Amino acid sequence: MTSLGVGLIGTGYMGKCHALAWNAVAPVFGDIERPRLVHLAEAGADLAAKQARALGFEKSTGDWRELIADRDVDIVSITTPNAFHPEMAIAALEAGKHVWCEKPMAPAFADAERMAEAARISGRVAVLGYNYIQNPLIRHIGKLLAEGAIGKLHSVRVEMDEDFMADPAALFSWKSEASSGYGALDDFGVHPLSILSTLLGPAEQVMADLAKPFPTRPTQDGKDREVETFDIAHILLRFAGGISGAIQLSRSAWGRKGRVAIQLFGSEGTIAYDQERMNELQIFTREGRASEQGFRTILTAPIHPPYDKFIPAPGHGLGFNELKIIEAREVMRAISGETAHIIDFQSGLAIEKTVHAIAHSHRDGCWVRL
Amino acid sequence: MTSLGVGLIGTGYMGKCHALAWNAVAPVFGDIERPRLVHLAEAGADLAAKQARALGFEKSTGDWRELIADRDVDIVSITTPNAFHPEMAIAALEAGKHVWCEKPMAPAFADAERMAEAARISGRVAVLGYNYIQNPLIRHIGKLLAEGAIGKLHSVRVEMDEDFMADPAALFSWKSEASSGYGALDDFGVHPLSILSTLLGPAEQVMADLAKPFPTRPTQDGKDREVETFDIAHILLRFAGGISGAIQLSRSAWGRKGRVAIQLFGSEGTIAYDQERMNELQIFTREGRASEQGFRTILTAPIHPPYDKFIPAPGHGLGFNELKIIEAREVMRAISGETAHIIDFQSGLAIEKTVHAIAHSHRDGCWVRL
Amino acid sequence: MTSLGVGLIGTGYMGKCHALAWNAVAPVFGDIERPRLVHLAEAGADLAAKQARALGFEKSTGDWRELIADRDVDIVSITTPNAFHPEMAIAALEAGKHVWCEKPMAPAFADAERMAEAARISGRVAVLGYNYIQNPLIRHIGKLLAEGAIGKLHSVRVEMDEDFMADPAALFSWKSEASSGYGALDDFGVHPLSILSTLLGPAEQVMADLAKPFPTRPTQDGKDREVETFDIAHILLRFAGGISGAIQLSRSAWGRKGRVAIQLFGSEGTIAYDQERMNELQIFTREGRASEQGFRTILTAPIHPPYDKFIPAPGHGLGFNELKIIEAREVMRAISGETAHIIDFQSGLAIEKTVHAIAHSHRDGCWVRL
Amino acid sequence: MTSLGVGLIGTGYMGKCHALAWNAVAPVFGDIERPRLVHLAEAGADLAAKQARALGFEKSTGDWRELIADRDVDIVSITTPNAFHPEMAIAALEAGKHVWCEKPMAPAFADAERMAEAARISGRVAVLGYNYIQNPLIRHIGKLLAEGAIGKLHSVRVEMDEDFMADPAALFSWKSEASSGYGALDDFGVHPLSILSTLLGPAEQVMADLAKPFPTRPTQDGKDREVETFDIAHILLRFAGGISGAIQLSRSAWGRKGRVAIQLFGSEGTIAYDQERMNELQIFTREGRASEQGFRTILTAPIHPPYDKFIPAPGHGLGFNELKIIEAREVMRAISGETAHIIDFQSGLAIEKTVHAIAHSHRDGCWVRL
Repeated sequence: MTSLGVGLIGTGYMGKCHALAWNAVAPVFGDIERPRLVHLAEAGADLAAKQARALGFEKSTGDWRELIADRDVDIVSITTPNAFHPEMAIAALEAGKHVWCEKPMAPAFADAERMAEAARISGRVAVLGYNYIQNPLIRHIGKLLAEGAIGKLHSVRVEMDEDFMADPAALFSWKSEASSGYGALDDFGVHPLSILSTLLGPAEQVMADLAKPFPTRPTQDGKDREVETFDIAHILLRFAGGISGAIQLSRSAWGRKGRVAIQLFGSEGTIAYDQERMNELQIFTREGRASEQGFRTILTAPIHPPYDKFIPAPGHGLGFNELKIIEAREVMRAISGETAHIIDFQSGLAIEKTVHAIAHSHRDGCWVRL
Repeated sequence: MTSLGVGLIGTGYMGKCHALAWNAVAPVFGDIERPRLVHLAEAGADLAAKQARALGFEKSTGDWRELIADRDVDIVSITTPNAFHPEMAIAALEAGKHVWCEKPMAPAFADAERMAEAARISGRVAVLGYNYIQNPLIRHIGKLLAEGAIGKLHSVRVEMDEDFMADPAALFSWKSEASSGYGALDDFGVHPLSILSTLLGPAEQVMADLAKPFPTRPTQDGKDREVETFDIAHILLRFAGGISGAIQLSRSAWGRKGRVAIQLFGSEGTIAYDQERMNELQIFTREGRASEQGFRTILTAPIHPPYDKFIPAPGHGLGFNELKIIEAREVMRAISGETAHIIDFQSGLAIEKTVHAIAHSHRDGCWVRL
Repeated sequence: MTSLGVGLIGTGYMGKCHALAWNAVAPVFGDIERPRLVHLAEAGADLAAKQARALGFEKSTGDWRELIADRDVDIVSITTPNAFHPEMAIAALEAGKHVWCEKPMAPAFADAERMAEAARISGRVAVLGYNYIQNPLIRHIGKLLAEGAIGKLHSVRVEMDEDFMADPAALFSWKSEASSGYGALDDFGVHPLSILSTLLGPAEQVMADLAKPFPTRPTQDGKDREVETFDIAHILLRFAGGISGAIQLSRSAWGRKGRVAIQLFGSEGTIAYDQERMNELQIFTREGRASEQGFRTILTAPIHPPYDKFIPAPGHGLGFNELKIIEAREVMRAISGETAHIIDFQSGLAIEKTVHAIAHSHRDGCWVRL
Repeated sequence: MTSLGVGLIGTGYMGKCHALAWNAVAPVFGDIERPRLVHLAEAGADLAAKQARALGFEKSTGDWRELIADRDVDIVSITTPNAFHPEMAIAALEAGKHVWCEKPMAPAFADAERMAEAARISGRVAVLGYNYIQNPLIRHIGKLLAEGAIGKLHSVRVEMDEDFMADPAALFSWKSEASSGYGALDDFGVHPLSILSTLLGPAEQVMADLAKPFPTRPTQDGKDREVETFDIAHILLRFAGGISGAIQLSRSAWGRKGRVAIQLFGSEGTIAYDQERMNELQIFTREGRASEQGFRTILTAPIHPPYDKFIPAPGHGLGFNELKIIEAREVMRAISGETAHIIDFQSGLAIEKTVHAIAHSHRDGCWVRL
């Protein structure tokens, strides 16, 4: 058997991230054949050639359809702007390739549905790039919940905050146009949803209040333009089994850089996590005597796989980009027919459906059932 | 002029707290005449006498009406169970006494209205014991907001969590009976509401999801009884000026002991605070160059009055009970006709009104306008 | 039996602190007769009278010897500048009074020895005001060590840092004169020594490096004057049983306000504490399975006596001044002949002896055996 | 010009780390020609072949001398046990190769001297793998110090703690034999020394107390064997310019997994850092008004190069292994004759000299001048 042939479309940050992951996955895990970096596509043959050299790909092209037609390519990494995802992903699947596409699926729900349908028909592996769920500690949370370490889960809270839209003096940009979506909700609210969906399953009912911290933003010609998207979202959720929850989102939260603060409350304990300290997990249980009970700060360690594949000593810390290496390994696992910890196009569609339901609940001022 | 004569009804934890405050307010502040601890009422003359001796009161009685009739008493501290508040507070006000009554006002909204009305008619000072707002750092937050230190405030979040109802095996108690109220919402949700009301003014619209983590609880005879109150609340709020917000409440949050985590997001910065670390304040602004920006941890210091009245050195820490001493000083300020930082019966009524609106929004599944 | 008669000499911050403690000790603990605040002495009869009124004392005097001669006074709180301690404490003891004297004992070791001797001869209770050791969590550390919760202790570290001398532009003051002592070492290094002495017993050998961050300081007339004291100390210690340790002291540590960071390492675990978060304790033991091990953050709770005497709910926080109330209770316990958690003049003398040994080890550049 | 040819000797954790760095350095930085992974040596041709395939090397050999003789190899990564460093490094340098050797240099100081001499004679780049100094935040500390952000530095503290030797029941191993060195001091004390040496220059005087938490350890045959190394070290240091300092080391500190806690005190501020939270930096300066002063928690961001080469958004976190990629870039910089942020064999020798001086100061109980 020859090793997996990789094609990469797009070489922005996420493209580089995929390339690094494909380069590193074999050395890190040590249990798989090193993938061949076969073909790289970019806008323009020159750029493509330059990037292929830098990222270690054998061939390059200015036309992504050539890459998809390449018989040496087994899987296509799609890291282009969201609007291109449907066309590229569907073409790749139809050409019999596996697909690893960055999230979210597509601006329009109908396109996301077509992608999921194409994946279903093709029988190929179609994975979305939800890398937060690959953190060994997020996985460990899943394990703890499954084991009942905090008893029966009854409520959850997630906050996801960044500050790239926090400055009211920042010029009006495409992120404030309705055509870009709802705002924080689809911009990065899909991450909390992906994490909750992995840990708890999908929400059954949602109700939200979306808000505009700055109703207008200045334009380059010195005027004020009305903002069409919501930089803030406050969301109520109900899950199966009577679990209640809330998500807070803001891309206008000064000082927050990559906060994804999760709190999971159960009948026997509480788990807390913050992505800004992605190598730490907090857990409270009633173990031991009362006078020494308290939240424990757990540092990632080899006992939390697959951290052990990266570093043999505890407490030394993984980086955000390294989650993509773990994700690459899972993609390869899916291709080999093994159980894989991924969000495929089908699960991804459920996330996008939830996003739209949340937006509708805000518009209508009432609960929406999924 | 003689000094202020104090009467105290009730000597549970809060009664003791009032007594300590009345004992300490003059030594701590050094700018007022020492109040005389005149009269103490408890259930039964013997207990009253014993407590008067311990807490430093001159007279004692087993009948609180005697205390209210005492001409040496200028102000009555009411620290009995909530159900007694209306009768006692109204009687005291009608007797021309000032009143310092523990929160919340009364189980029934109509009673709270009667109390507010009695206060209005009496012209006396009528204060509720919302001590969280007396923390020098909470006051400092108010000052920062007023100065525009974080620009224009656009969104807020508060979480208030404890774990005294977290154990599903704990026996069914009166706190799970509908007669005790809605649950976490009125049990301690009034604290976040008091803080937000002080900092932002009252909410204009609310929408909530109240939840029962444990639908039943065991009774002493080994059966399961249906729980009638909500140990959890997820609340959406809209304030004047387009400010949006959310409050999360839980009395079933394992490991949380006195968490009141506040986040205030403005156009120029963010403020964060947690009551479990009540001597620390977090603030982010864009001061200084970008490479050194970050949340600052401010420790309470003499520069945050009235901490200076307690300790001349920074960073040594106030305690929860000491907030009551500050509150006593504010009550005395109100009596002297000075501007005081208090929640009077009128503001207290607005808080109780919000509590009921939140409960109704849950029941009806839609926004309630206040 | 009449209740304890209290005399107070000095009404600066510490005097106020003693007064507050004597006012509060009976209401807080509820198991003792309320002490009578009998007599207060200050420099000048007017100030004394004013302070007596504010602090709740019956009599006042401008001559401390009158207070000591007062037959109604059973115990004398001495809170004057250190230089006055020997004369006042010895006079009080010789008059048959108990003494509660603020730390440190005296600038000169010979005076401290005279004080200890006077205490011994008098048979009275003679206590030093080392209040850090009264924190329920510091006591709990003692309990944990005694129980072997972290196995056999093998090493310790303490850092004590403030920043009141951190500014090199601050004018030369008496704290930079050799007559004030060695510097940070006796200024507040006695606190870590008191804590370690309580937890481990006294050090057997010491070796130190004292340092001057600013060799000169400006004087009011615009010149530079050579600094004679050491604002920084790095200390090595050896205790009985092969326990090794280090203390770092600085009164020039910008941003540190009341840091007393303690780390205790044992064969089965580690305990960490920082006075700036005096209501939290960190403990690591190998309890439970490896994947959930980590430092626990314990919040003070009623299970850590005597916190329960202050607040019935966990996690609400004691303040620095409240430690003095606990200390007052211990002083009363000692007077009643009960076992008390105090540092008496004898133990205090051992601390002062260690201070001098540390200074000598620096001067001579070698270990000093105690 | 052809790209850099890389040889790698040793494929344990550090070998893998080097391989990952060589694989990733070009994609990450995007400004250099991708190095060719030419030759890999391991103990045994089979293992070498397997590892070469996994790690992406073209050739493999069971004899490291073949690798050094390979004309396609420009630089040799040496990641074998310390005892092999001298022979391999000197052979590589003599063959005209650049060398990137893991720290420490060699068990014997004379061998380290020979290595430094060989490097000097060869004129080749000879770098030691001190990766902690490559953290963008550690570099940023260097920049802050150079700019005078905290004024004139006057004192420093470093703690480095892990717990892999904390269990007294763990069997006696080679780490407890004198032949392995002094203990924690050379095992990982070289890291704090490398960081301080980069930030402040080398120490001028040292004085230490080395300690054995467990005098004996059990052997497999059920006996107790005397421990010959020191798992704990308390070190005093004096640097040029009157800077004083202390280092605490322990490999028996339960719960500490990769703690390297650095505190730098200056005349205008304080910097604090802990490797267990390697994406955070604490800084205190007196900027802004007093009521908002406090330690700031800075999250790594693109403004702290070369984080920007990894991730375009702030606060997402680098991992420990990724520091090796930065180090690889610096090694390449050195080879190109650019200024590089590295510890070369000459600086490395000064670190090893300090290690031995510290050990001697303990043995002799007095200060040692370097």
